[in-house]
Amino acid sequence: MSDSAVMSRRAGGRAARVAARSAPLAENLRPVRPGLPGGQYKPLTDAGVKRIHEAALEALEVIGLSQAPQSGVDIMTKAGAILGEDGRLRFPRALVEDMLAVAARDITLFGRDPKYDMELSGTRTYFGTAGAAVHIVDVEKREYRESTSADLLAASKLVHHLDNIHFFQRAMVCRDVPDNFDMDMNTLYACCAGTTKHVGTSFSDPAHVAGGFDMLHMIAGGEDQWRARPFVSNSNCFVVPPMKFATESCQTMEDCIRKGMPILLLSAGQAGATAPASLATAIVQAVAECLAGVVYVNAMSPGHPAIFGTWPFVSDLRTGAMSGGSGEQGLLTAGCAQMHHFYGLPGGAAGGMSDSKLPDMQAGWEQGILNVMAGLSGLNMIYESVGMHASLLGFCLESLVLGDDLLGQVQRCVRGIDVTEDSVSIETMRSVCLDGPGHYLGHSQTLELMQTEYIYPAVADRTSPKEWAEIGRPDLVQKAIERKNRILRDAAPTLIDPAADRAIREKFRIYC
Amino acid sequence: MSDSAVMSRRAGGRAARVAARSAPLAENLRPVRPGLPGGQYKPLTDAGVKRIHEAALEALEVIGLSQAPQSGVDIMTKAGAILGEDGRLRFPRALVEDMLAVAARDITLFGRDPKYDMELSGTRTYFGTAGAAVHIVDVEKREYRESTSADLLAASKLVHHLDNIHFFQRAMVCRDVPDNFDMDMNTLYACCAGTTKHVGTSFSDPAHVAGGFDMLHMIAGGEDQWRARPFVSNSNCFVVPPMKFATESCQTMEDCIRKGMPILLLSAGQAGATAPASLATAIVQAVAECLAGVVYVNAMSPGHPAIFGTWPFVSDLRTGAMSGGSGEQGLLTAGCAQMHHFYGLPGGAAGGMSDSKLPDMQAGWEQGILNVMAGLSGLNMIYESVGMHASLLGFCLESLVLGDDLLGQVQRCVRGIDVTEDSVSIETMRSVCLDGPGHYLGHSQTLELMQTEYIYPAVADRTSPKEWAEIGRPDLVQKAIERKNRILRDAAPTLIDPAADRAIREKFRIYC
Repeated sequence: MSDSAVMSRRAGGRAARVAARSAPLAENLRPVRPGLPGGQYKPLTDAGVKRIHEAALEALEVIGLSQAPQSGVDIMTKAGAILGEDGRLRFPRALVEDMLAVAARDITLFGRDPKYDMELSGTRTYFGTAGAAVHIVDVEKREYRESTSADLLAASKLVHHLDNIHFFQRAMVCRDVPDNFDMDMNTLYACCAGTTKHVGTSFSDPAHVAGGFDMLHMIAGGEDQWRARPFVSNSNCFVVPPMKFATESCQTMEDCIRKGMPILLLSAGQAGATAPASLATAIVQAVAECLAGVVYVNAMSPGHPAIFGTWPFVSDLRTGAMSGGSGEQGLLTAGCAQMHHFYGLPGGAAGGMSDSKLPDMQAGWEQGILNVMAGLSGLNMIYESVGMHASLLGFCLESLVLGDDLLGQVQRCVRGIDVTEDSVSIETMRSVCLDGPGHYLGHSQTLELMQTEYIYPAVADRTSPKEWAEIGRPDLVQKAIERKNRILRDAAPTLIDPAADRAIREKFRIYC
Repeated sequence: MSDSAVMSRRAGGRAARVAARSAPLAENLRPVRPGLPGGQYKPLTDAGVKRIHEAALEALEVIGLSQAPQSGVDIMTKAGAILGEDGRLRFPRALVEDMLAVAARDITLFGRDPKYDMELSGTRTYFGTAGAAVHIVDVEKREYRESTSADLLAASKLVHHLDNIHFFQRAMVCRDVPDNFDMDMNTLYACCAGTTKHVGTSFSDPAHVAGGFDMLHMIAGGEDQWRARPFVSNSNCFVVPPMKFATESCQTMEDCIRKGMPILLLSAGQAGATAPASLATAIVQAVAECLAGVVYVNAMSPGHPAIFGTWPFVSDLRTGAMSGGSGEQGLLTAGCAQMHHFYGLPGGAAGGMSDSKLPDMQAGWEQGILNVMAGLSGLNMIYESVGMHASLLGFCLESLVLGDDLLGQVQRCVRGIDVTEDSVSIETMRSVCLDGPGHYLGHSQTLELMQTEYIYPAVADRTSPKEWAEIGRPDLVQKAIERKNRILRDAAPTLIDPAADRAIREKFRIYC
């Protein structure tokens, strides 16, 4: 074949590939999708997992937890917990085992749109946001300013349109809302108005729960509809590590359970500060605290959906300040995922924070390393996987947009290498090498796999240096700003039914 | 305890921590070090590994490789390979198994300074550079310009002073050197003048090998000294995928073997172009090619040190261009590491390239994800782990400096979670919760572990938003420029003995 024939054939191959690429793909053929199973990465040995489990049981028997509300003391002592003279509740091993036996497994976290439902079983992985950042990052001015309800709504809208982000838990505090009740209501509203994916939220006071459910019932179209498919979970810091219940949060939790809301049992110790500096013991403490939560929830309402939320964080021990983006954090999170699998419970932890103030190279490696470790460990709910900067103090919308590309790559890694008789057949190699052109560029297998086996980033750059110079050396953050603006320009003002939206605005002081 | 007493106690704890941090640590107590064992991550099942092995053997028997030099044909047919009428050498299974049985295992790659020796056994991991970038990235001008011998020397000096980078393989082409022989000699000189860590290099022509060894013997102080501790390996693209020997590179390889140089048997196919688009089959092809290399080397010189260099790369199948930073790349590299462990041979692959043109967030996540997957998979030699941009076309010195922080974090992840009776003892928890201050900040365990369990970045930022604003919102890349300049300012002009350096400059045209 002449050189020009080869070139023409190659150009034809390229045109065919571009055409194939533009055809829409069936959901089940996409290279990545929500809920891909992980578990190929195991930081702990089986013996290590059992040893941590034993230590957690011992901690619950010997140390126990203080400061449960009276209602919680009643619920848990009735089930078999022992209230000591020091005011601490201690948990006999048999009680923990009994409650583990009735705890909900294989739960579904519902989206308002059923296509966003998440099935938390085995090592299935879902990536989303979380946090309580008090700042938003202005990337153009390189400044931190106070986050607002409008910022939260924008984040929610972006998540709704970013395929590789599967749920939206409140990521920022609405600091434009002075009253605490109003703040909780605006948080809930902003989350639900922007997306029909599953939402997570918190209540800053048990007295705010009732108002929140008023709003949720309005959004759902009634209490029955809400209870049939609860689309919001309660991110609940039910403990103040080390080994203390958070009295008011426990009251909130009880109320949310009665009202049919799934609970994220969140233990957020900080290794070296509120948790032991030893990574293994930090996991022990988080597991012990969450097991106490499992007892609490299931003693009150057996089988109520709850997520085992071991979220141990890391301190920079030189200063005591939190480090969200460290390697130690990646290990803690992945180790916790293995504990969830040991219990067979749906679990979640913090996946991809950055210590950097901006979406720069440091942010990239911190978020990339943490998320891929969390995903490969098979963590069900990977919270704080995108947008989170300054060790949880700042949220960044441009980083959220870039994070969608980052998570696409991570999810491709979680999906893994397909080894089937077909995929390792040497027939393609044989025909290319012995009968064919000596390359795979135009081969039918290549065309077939280009969409199902390969994922392509939306913003990230793959041009050659020459092309890059020709198109004006585009800046990554600038491209993220543009994608962000496009999504926000095209997004619906609210995804809540218009009548319900009006009714909510009449009943509550909505700021955004 | 009053609030002020708590504060004062905490401040005392901080001062104690800062003091502890400033004391130098013994090498064996450092949180990370060269050669940490990985293997906690396994993208392939055991059955998948065996299936790929079987397919590779089949490919060697059925397809074989063409274009061996006559010398190679003689060596391999004498050992039992079969030369077909189509000019292809085919390898019976028994021949491959016999050669695997005599192949070198547990080899040492020497540094010129013995403290940099690398022991390639099991899942031990070493991170370094590699490549043949034709550009260097000017981060201040955001431009790509042609790379020079001075750039290569600067990179070598930087690697010498960056603890988390363990070897220096030639990363850039010296484009300021017009003559090809001079270019190879300048490449070797620049690498060895900058660092006493292990060096990898290539020869662009078999005729250049003799000159290279003249220089190496001068650096070593004689041929005997060189042969006792060969501190340079030959990165040898002995195949042109798919399934063809690279005739001249094979001649170079034979000569390097005779002269006592370890060989990196490098198969650098590109999935979808010169290798199959199916990830599993791309690994099959790379394994088959490297097994042919094992036969070649061991038929010629049984037990000669060689690295099983399965380096399958990835195409962006929309364009056919290479994508170095993709998730598919991370899977290929980690899957290859498992194949190396299956054979029990020292192995290497490409670890942490970026497609981005600059050290930006994309570069961070691509390099972070790829390196942590390579490290956790237990890949012995993780090439191209730092500094590599534009899908191998550009090298960046500032990215190299930032990569040292990135690799420190990766190595911390590879080290994993220490689960011992001591590390999961609940005694610290018990004393803190029941008898103590209710936090772990000043605890003796915290102080003890802060240096041995936690790693701190040199350039990456962990300040709070407030501190960050106060210190003028430092830019990450600017900080990297400053660290780069400090290292280069303090580095010795050459690490070659002055007399030898002068002699080399008399014998060869040295440009840098």
